[in-house]
Amino acid sequence: MLPGQSSIDAGLAIARQLFETIGARTFDGVGFTRAAYGVGEQCAHDLIAAHARDLDLAVEVDEALNLSMTLKGEDPALAPLVVGSHVDAVPQGGNFDGLAGVLAGLACLAAFRDSGIRPRRTVCLMAIRAEESAWFGAQHVGSRAMLGTLDHRILDDARRVDTGRSLADHMKEAGVDVARLRAGGALRDPKSIYGYVELHIEQGPLLVSNGLPIGIVTGIRGNRRCRKLVCRGEYAHSGTTPRKLRHDAVFAVSELVTRMDEQWRRIEDEEGGDLVVTFGRFTTDPGAHAVTTVPGEVEFCFDARSHSPDTLERVERALASAMRDIEARRGVGFHCDPFTGDAPVAMDSGFQDILQSGCKELAIPAMRIASGAGHDAGDFAAAGVPSAMIFVRNDKGSHNPDEAMEFEDFALGVRLLTWFVANEQGARSS
Amino acid sequence: MLPGQSSIDAGLAIARQLFETIGARTFDGVGFTRAAYGVGEQCAHDLIAAHARDLDLAVEVDEALNLSMTLKGEDPALAPLVVGSHVDAVPQGGNFDGLAGVLAGLACLAAFRDSGIRPRRTVCLMAIRAEESAWFGAQHVGSRAMLGTLDHRILDDARRVDTGRSLADHMKEAGVDVARLRAGGALRDPKSIYGYVELHIEQGPLLVSNGLPIGIVTGIRGNRRCRKLVCRGEYAHSGTTPRKLRHDAVFAVSELVTRMDEQWRRIEDEEGGDLVVTFGRFTTDPGAHAVTTVPGEVEFCFDARSHSPDTLERVERALASAMRDIEARRGVGFHCDPFTGDAPVAMDSGFQDILQSGCKELAIPAMRIASGAGHDAGDFAAAGVPSAMIFVRNDKGSHNPDEAMEFEDFALGVRLLTWFVANEQGARSS
Repeated sequence: MLPGQSSIDAGLAIARQLFETIGARTFDGVGFTRAAYGVGEQCAHDLIAAHARDLDLAVEVDEALNLSMTLKGEDPALAPLVVGSHVDAVPQGGNFDGLAGVLAGLACLAAFRDSGIRPRRTVCLMAIRAEESAWFGAQHVGSRAMLGTLDHRILDDARRVDTGRSLADHMKEAGVDVARLRAGGALRDPKSIYGYVELHIEQGPLLVSNGLPIGIVTGIRGNRRCRKLVCRGEYAHSGTTPRKLRHDAVFAVSELVTRMDEQWRRIEDEEGGDLVVTFGRFTTDPGAHAVTTVPGEVEFCFDARSHSPDTLERVERALASAMRDIEARRGVGFHCDPFTGDAPVAMDSGFQDILQSGCKELAIPAMRIASGAGHDAGDFAAAGVPSAMIFVRNDKGSHNPDEAMEFEDFALGVRLLTWFVANEQGARSS
Repeated sequence: MLPGQSSIDAGLAIARQLFETIGARTFDGVGFTRAAYGVGEQCAHDLIAAHARDLDLAVEVDEALNLSMTLKGEDPALAPLVVGSHVDAVPQGGNFDGLAGVLAGLACLAAFRDSGIRPRRTVCLMAIRAEESAWFGAQHVGSRAMLGTLDHRILDDARRVDTGRSLADHMKEAGVDVARLRAGGALRDPKSIYGYVELHIEQGPLLVSNGLPIGIVTGIRGNRRCRKLVCRGEYAHSGTTPRKLRHDAVFAVSELVTRMDEQWRRIEDEEGGDLVVTFGRFTTDPGAHAVTTVPGEVEFCFDARSHSPDTLERVERALASAMRDIEARRGVGFHCDPFTGDAPVAMDSGFQDILQSGCKELAIPAMRIASGAGHDAGDFAAAGVPSAMIFVRNDKGSHNPDEAMEFEDFALGVRLLTWFVANEQGARSS
């Protein structure tokens, strides 16, 4: 049974207050900073947990400090539904990326509490740790630790960009049982979870440009990524070195970027494929570059995303082949850190259908939409947990202080989530 | 009359000793560092001046601290010939770039002293200050100050790359009469100088690859340069932002670089034009770039050199037109600091001919050669002083500790320079 509108409004009032309080506490003068396993994230966890206790939810943290707030269902024998998102935010980021999903879950459970209605299945709201890669160059740390899919080498290898200290070090400081994480294995068996639902602001422009408040996510793009590639040529005098004797790293990497741009255009425009390609960093060496020196070294990074594993593979092959060709013609050498990647994942089609029915019944205008960014939901799905995502319209992208989610759109998302919890019976397809 | 070989050998012995002493005093553990208007340069000036006094040359410094060591000629009514080069060296540079020319002049004057022969015309050996742009981003400061062609704004605008302090500040500390330089005008009237001859190591590979110890320079490439260009696009999420909504600064500048590479190839390969193009710096913003962020800004620099003023103009136009086109298609903006440049200059053809005759008479294998790099000789020529340059074979380029000039080749250069001083009568063409 669905809680009434006055109960949902009561839940929304709690969410609105927490957006304001957490926002005010973690505002850095420019945007909102909530470091993964740092003070901003902990502050949000503490405030949310306090409200969950007020609602008489069972509050627990696991060994990775993921926060669970559980509302027992009518039938405790049924596997629980997990609802949640993260609350960490990139440096000078926005207030809604991540936090909206946790507060939507809290509003939903508060509505059940207020109405006295108990969902059939136990619902566990989670505030998951360390989703953003901006802090440690490693994403979805909390969900992976919980699901047993964390590569434990990153505990020591990943270092926080500002402090230079390791992830393990910051985790210990926050109170994580690092030895337990090193041992590997899931903190909570994925098979014991019925499904995972995450509400999140859209980080692209599609809902805004289509004039729709809600998106039902079909899948999450996979990626192939290399954090550090180096092109080594030869430093030389910019006036005296003839063209044919140069090994210019800037010309070499620029050619590589331009060729990948052309490859991308072909895949997207001519073949209708799904792809985005980004070289987010491109730097000559500040200790050696000069206006009158042929640049001998460039460091850069690479990120490609697609819903198609074939396209990702093809792009990585194209990059490798272009590098070999440029090496031969220009007399430079490319040296790459290991490529990492997540496979594209689909959201559960049964969950998508039930969300679609909910939109219809609640008269919420919505569209099916693909997620360009990665989310914890992708890790749940990859670990075999049927998963769904609700996107809420948001202008100005994310990871910046200008994220612009209207509270009215958030309220529609909370209604849909609450409807889903009340109506999920037998919904999932897998 | 030409001093005999034993007198030249006496001069060469002084030069050899000073290469060693100055090198040892200014070795930094990796290469040779002689900061313009800094301690390394002053140390070399002091040692050279001491030897000049031993040779009973008239030693003076001008208001810019350029050092003059004068041997009076038989006919004091004749305008003096200036021989010289610089002694400053880039950080961790080589021992020969610049210093070779001053020590060649000293060896030449020492040979005249040793032989008792007096040249017909007064010869003034100069150690010119601050030729290298590596320290203040401003080149040929000493010669320009002397010739009255220094843009005095750089006194305050140019800052030493390591200290951040202004050129005027470092000059004052060294003892320069900065107020005199601010007043402008030549410290020594260019019209009062008969000609200028500079010996310098070759900084390119042509003498080595041609197996010749000596080059007679035909001219010095001009340049068009911009120390700072910025391309501004828009930072965005690398996963969620579709291709058509991106304003990626790395793709934009890479396209610009690649188009200029193609333009250069056409001018050189298809039209046989003279050109080199360098983008020595290319950096995304370390405070904002990330592997999962579409880069919103790139800073870079530009340097083009050619013996043809038309080619330089054409390349600058091509750059501007490519930037406009890329701005329109990619929705980015290019913002450029003012372009600066030196026009290409020719070396005096009469001087070149007399040097050629000298090589023939002394049986020194030599070729005519163009200079890709800038030199003080270019500023003398641009100020109307007939000028010549002797290049000495040198492997491994310059501005690095591996500069490899053989002393035997240097000795041939000194013989040629001495022959020139003894035989320059009526040589110059302008």
